[in-house]
Amino acid sequence: MPLNKLLRDGDNEDLAEERRKATFDTDEMAAIIWEGKERVRRRREITKKVNEYTELHDPYCQAFMTRHEEVENAARKITKMFTLIDKLGVNPTNPADMAHLTSEVIGLYGHPLALHAVMFIPSLQAQCADDQMHWLKKAMSRQIIGTYAQTELGHGTNLRKLETTAIYDAKTQEFILHSPTRTAMKWWPGNLGKSANHAVVVACLIINGKNYGPHNFIVPLRDPETHMPLKGITVGDIGPKMATGPVDNGFLSFDHYRIPRTNMLMKHAKVTPEGKYIPPAHAKVGYSAMVHVRSHMISDQAKFLAQALTTAIRYSAIRRQGEIQPGDGEVKILEYQTQQYRLLPQLARAYAFSFTGRAVRDLYLRVQKDVAKGKVHEMAELHYITSGLKAVVTHLTGEGISQARMSCGGHGYSKASNMPDLYGK
Amino acid sequence: MPLNKLLRDGDNEDLAEERRKATFDTDEMAAIIWEGKERVRRRREITKKVNEYTELHDPYCQAFMTRHEEVENAARKITKMFTLIDKLGVNPTNPADMAHLTSEVIGLYGHPLALHAVMFIPSLQAQCADDQMHWLKKAMSRQIIGTYAQTELGHGTNLRKLETTAIYDAKTQEFILHSPTRTAMKWWPGNLGKSANHAVVVACLIINGKNYGPHNFIVPLRDPETHMPLKGITVGDIGPKMATGPVDNGFLSFDHYRIPRTNMLMKHAKVTPEGKYIPPAHAKVGYSAMVHVRSHMISDQAKFLAQALTTAIRYSAIRRQGEIQPGDGEVKILEYQTQQYRLLPQLARAYAFSFTGRAVRDLYLRVQKDVAKGKVHEMAELHYITSGLKAVVTHLTGEGISQARMSCGGHGYSKASNMPDLYGK
Repeated sequence: MPLNKLLRDGDNEDLAEERRKATFDTDEMAAIIWEGKERVRRRREITKKVNEYTELHDPYCQAFMTRHEEVENAARKITKMFTLIDKLGVNPTNPADMAHLTSEVIGLYGHPLALHAVMFIPSLQAQCADDQMHWLKKAMSRQIIGTYAQTELGHGTNLRKLETTAIYDAKTQEFILHSPTRTAMKWWPGNLGKSANHAVVVACLIINGKNYGPHNFIVPLRDPETHMPLKGITVGDIGPKMATGPVDNGFLSFDHYRIPRTNMLMKHAKVTPEGKYIPPAHAKVGYSAMVHVRSHMISDQAKFLAQALTTAIRYSAIRRQGEIQPGDGEVKILEYQTQQYRLLPQLARAYAFSFTGRAVRDLYLRVQKDVAKGKVHEMAELHYITSGLKAVVTHLTGEGISQARMSCGGHGYSKASNMPDLYGK
Repeated sequence: MPLNKLLRDGDNEDLAEERRKATFDTDEMAAIIWEGKERVRRRREITKKVNEYTELHDPYCQAFMTRHEEVENAARKITKMFTLIDKLGVNPTNPADMAHLTSEVIGLYGHPLALHAVMFIPSLQAQCADDQMHWLKKAMSRQIIGTYAQTELGHGTNLRKLETTAIYDAKTQEFILHSPTRTAMKWWPGNLGKSANHAVVVACLIINGKNYGPHNFIVPLRDPETHMPLKGITVGDIGPKMATGPVDNGFLSFDHYRIPRTNMLMKHAKVTPEGKYIPPAHAKVGYSAMVHVRSHMISDQAKFLAQALTTAIRYSAIRRQGEIQPGDGEVKILEYQTQQYRLLPQLARAYAFSFTGRAVRDLYLRVQKDVAKGKVHEMAELHYITSGLKAVVTHLTGEGISQARMSCGGHGYSKASNMPDLYGK
């Protein structure tokens, strides 16, 4: 029995030749990467199920779809996935199973309900006060579809300079959401362009002329029956990007749009009916949704890099170029030191990022538990670690995928290689 | 009169502030870049004409078009451009005017007849014997539409290993073109997928079992009336790529497809009716089409880099982030040394590549003249220079455009920035 468990009869002989050289058991390595033999077995089981249900497949290659078709196709698949969830044998509260199932159904391209699960629900979980849990319940049962709207056209990481305002009107006990300039427009949130009917919106809280900085509000955007934007809301699609078309990134602006006081998420900071501000225990507590996404990003980047390298290294084992010994035929490009130098350090990075992602996830989960108990002393450090690693890991992953793409010659430029979309991630 | 001639009333004030600081006359710089004041005047005249003729414009943004629409739209525009050429006041034999006109009409995305002008016609010019000039005439008048098919699925730069064969049959005085394997399939030639009805095909010439290496043949691919592939020809679209959708890259394979002996381009090497091979004066003389394209590539890359930097530097002058002095407001990101370090060396490269491209073009033109007189001693050097510079300049340009893209934050990821398509070039 060879150590490489991927060997199959009828494989390309150039590839099989490399696989027979394996010096470790590939199933054991899979168990290390995916945290246990049982997880590997379970992943394969889920993959098999997804392959069986043709309703979860693309009718044709997504690279040939129009923008409209790709968004609609992804929405159809993710909705179907939830309808079939019992038949697929997946428990929707099991994060590891759900992550693998979603990845198998959706692939690289993203889907227009992703932020509902990845940012909207976690925001509500982290920030709803006890008497606001009805929002979370509606989100969990998908009676409302939401996103998280923080970034503005002119404002990214410098949150204190966000221009969207939420001015408290004590007379009516409402907040007035407003976008005073063009650069104040929310820009980039996923799921926002065509899909979401609610959003957790980050806006600067103003009471009696005093600016208390960014706070979170749950905001209805579209009519639940007609899906048309509500009066005072301008919302739409920001158009094509390098990749991730179906993520449905959108824009959003407010024209003196009123929401009840109770739509401010008040687990941490609070505003009383009279307009008294009660600060949170820790100033940064409101950003947990972004921290949550960043903690996942590292593992995701590791996977993208690993996928690109799998393609590039397999390609290097079957592509032959250059006759070193006249008459011996052309050699595999994997034999060239330049090709090895290009690819193997990137492969090492993919492993390193995978283990880093796991460590950051564990740290995030521990800090979240502490914060729930009021222990916030590690929040700042978690923020530094996730922000710093996000920047370093996405940059190095982009570099690594570029190297993988170029190591496939021109073929890395074709969408059939997946490299352009992997780079776009 | 300010030195920056681009200043206009109503400009964004942040941008105007930078433009007022110009220390050189922008029109004089334009004259240096475009080789004379008259060329600059002429370019502006052509641009104005193109703006006047709405038939030459896109009905809507190309980024929103389907694959079919983008190819068709580009074909429509380039055809219209030739129909209107007298009204546009451009002489089709003036290369500089034609290059600028085509660039203004087509933009970044390419068009499905580009290789007809850039590789098919130059190949015929360089390689038709005197009694083969009727092919060139038909190509010039667009009675036939052609491309240049060299690269194969499994074979790129190592031309001697191309697998497509042209076996001479002295009985019928024909060559039999054949693709013996899957990797022998021609793959990547532009204009081939849906558009061309002829190609200059590079295939290994075999006479009486002896392989004479790669030679050029003019080959009919599609029926001139129905545009359907001829018997023995398999041809089609290779699908979506990172960018340049309308370039219409295709695949092509031959199943014992016969062409007359006289379809071998015989200006240099020749095959007599009896099957006697007469070698060319210089072995590399057949590759001039590739050298021609490479000599243009450097100037083109300089332009792409300059375009990306224009966007990135202007964006850096209007985007503000981070308050250095509390109360002074956020500063232009162009003020940050990290942003300057990112962009300004790339700007210097754009200038350097522009002048390099001009030098290589002049060298190419001189060597072409010499070769026409039988002086081939500089061909090898031209080949080294263009191959080496192509690799270095495209790599550094890709890096520079990535830097420009990232210096625009998330907005560089949107197709509205043009960065994804510029990088794809």
